[in-house]
Amino acid sequence: MKVSELGEFGLIDLLAKMVPESQAEKPVIGIGDDAAAWHSESSLQLATVDTLVQGVHFSLETITWKELGWKSLAINLSDIAAMGGVPRHALVALALPEDTEVEEVTQLYEGMIELAGRFDVAIIGGNVSRSPVVSITVTVLGESLNNEVLRRSAARPGDTIAITGYPGSAAAGLEMLSQDLQFGVETATYLRSAFTRPRPRIAEGQLLLKEGVTAAIDTSDGLLADLRHICEASGVGAKINTGILPIHPAVARNFGERMREFALSGGEDYELLFTGKAGVVERVIAKMEYPVTSIGEITSGKPGEISLLDADGNPVKIDKAGWEHF
Amino acid sequence: MKVSELGEFGLIDLLAKMVPESQAEKPVIGIGDDAAAWHSESSLQLATVDTLVQGVHFSLETITWKELGWKSLAINLSDIAAMGGVPRHALVALALPEDTEVEEVTQLYEGMIELAGRFDVAIIGGNVSRSPVVSITVTVLGESLNNEVLRRSAARPGDTIAITGYPGSAAAGLEMLSQDLQFGVETATYLRSAFTRPRPRIAEGQLLLKEGVTAAIDTSDGLLADLRHICEASGVGAKINTGILPIHPAVARNFGERMREFALSGGEDYELLFTGKAGVVERVIAKMEYPVTSIGEITSGKPGEISLLDADGNPVKIDKAGWEHF
Repeated sequence: MKVSELGEFGLIDLLAKMVPESQAEKPVIGIGDDAAAWHSESSLQLATVDTLVQGVHFSLETITWKELGWKSLAINLSDIAAMGGVPRHALVALALPEDTEVEEVTQLYEGMIELAGRFDVAIIGGNVSRSPVVSITVTVLGESLNNEVLRRSAARPGDTIAITGYPGSAAAGLEMLSQDLQFGVETATYLRSAFTRPRPRIAEGQLLLKEGVTAAIDTSDGLLADLRHICEASGVGAKINTGILPIHPAVARNFGERMREFALSGGEDYELLFTGKAGVVERVIAKMEYPVTSIGEITSGKPGEISLLDADGNPVKIDKAGWEHF
Repeated sequence: MKVSELGEFGLIDLLAKMVPESQAEKPVIGIGDDAAAWHSESSLQLATVDTLVQGVHFSLETITWKELGWKSLAINLSDIAAMGGVPRHALVALALPEDTEVEEVTQLYEGMIELAGRFDVAIIGGNVSRSPVVSITVTVLGESLNNEVLRRSAARPGDTIAITGYPGSAAAGLEMLSQDLQFGVETATYLRSAFTRPRPRIAEGQLLLKEGVTAAIDTSDGLLADLRHICEASGVGAKINTGILPIHPAVARNFGERMREFALSGGEDYELLFTGKAGVVERVIAKMEYPVTSIGEITSGKPGEISLLDADGNPVKIDKAGWEHF
């Protein structure tokens, strides 16, 4: 079978099942969550790894090298954010074509260093190798707050579903960049930044953990796809009110009805999607400086099944249900 | 400037200098050694990352998927071995073409799991993504013995230089596989295994640390190139007696005078090259079950300059002085 037939998540699942539980100590969180976690002698450590491949995850026609450096670290910090953890160290493996300009590589590192500096993350190691296409693999190590982490598997029927920020903004940004759409400078800046310089929600993830939300994930594959990951891991269903999705004015004004497709199925926002008792989510909304919106509810329906409702509570359908990477 | 003009090591050096020391706590060992190390609250942790790219580091015509899995983990465990450390956890980032057979990926994982099992290493996380070529990035985390590590920078004039195993065996194996040379089954098995299933010298590295050797490195780029890394990091020179290089009989019998070129400049042996006071090296040779051979001496000569001598102490020259990856 080709990996493209099995799909990305099928492949991850298959590989996760291959690794025997008996191998060394059992990690607290192994393959299949946002980051791996294991007990060192003193505290619960976290680790995560992600790769960006030229022509698959990015095109050098729509992202600068500096932005690419930022983004390649950001997507990993976002995984630590989704665990409610504290990022500490990063290792960077670069694979580069021979004719890459050195200045391009230093710009890449500048973007990475700028973001690392904002979160006191130390870039402690790495590796460069030759490759026909640019490929950037970043590993981030961190630790948990008080030996606790946010998991995907803890959502319960009746929980409120909420999301930080404005889902769909990155997809709208990619659309603008790849279609060369022309907007005013403020809109263009917001959209470009949403796609090329995602902000890992580190402080927000830690707040979620402290306030006692049940499950969390960062939205890399798209709101629906990532909600499905939570639902499958938790053995629950969900319903989403598509009439109250928080859509940024820059997207709502310029993309008409496609704004909802972007918000539900567009990937790479790297916002936090989470579930919790209604009172907990209300408290989070009150305490978080960054916007948070309740968008639905966890149900006892078929695990992984998500119902979409309009503002009046009537079922709606969409065509695209999030991205898989194969 | 193209990265190919700057060279792999020039690029690593450049990037290492870019990362400000002020970013978070200073790691004990940062970019430029085999692995990064930092203090957690209780013990000195280690981390390393390496990538194998199809068409650059391997060809699927000369290595099976299972061997590739073994090797992609082995080269990282070898970096931990070169620090005298204990490997604990691995994260695996796979980039695969869409038409990769799932069975190929599971074979890859089988090879990795087999090796991980031998050293009680837990594969705790990973990631898969699409790519035009196969690329495997493995991050290995470990810890130090008694908060000490072997460094590249501690060689001193007068130290004996020694190496484990039989350098050049992997290069001879690659020559056999790529040129389709025909040998008897015993020779062919040894040579294939030397190239495709390198044995990380974990126990040996720990013994070196306990016995108090000064500097160590694993030989991935070739004996001379890796010795130059030690010499440059330590600010010393070296002389090697090419007449006493330990060359495996399977190589000596079948490759004539090329055996010495393989031993000096062939990469990917993943043996341990180290330096230490003569008495320490003698004790290591006596205690280690695996073969170790003294091959030269650290000098106070020009930093990084290596003299090659024949069995009579006369200078010799070779053409190729180790590989760079660009």
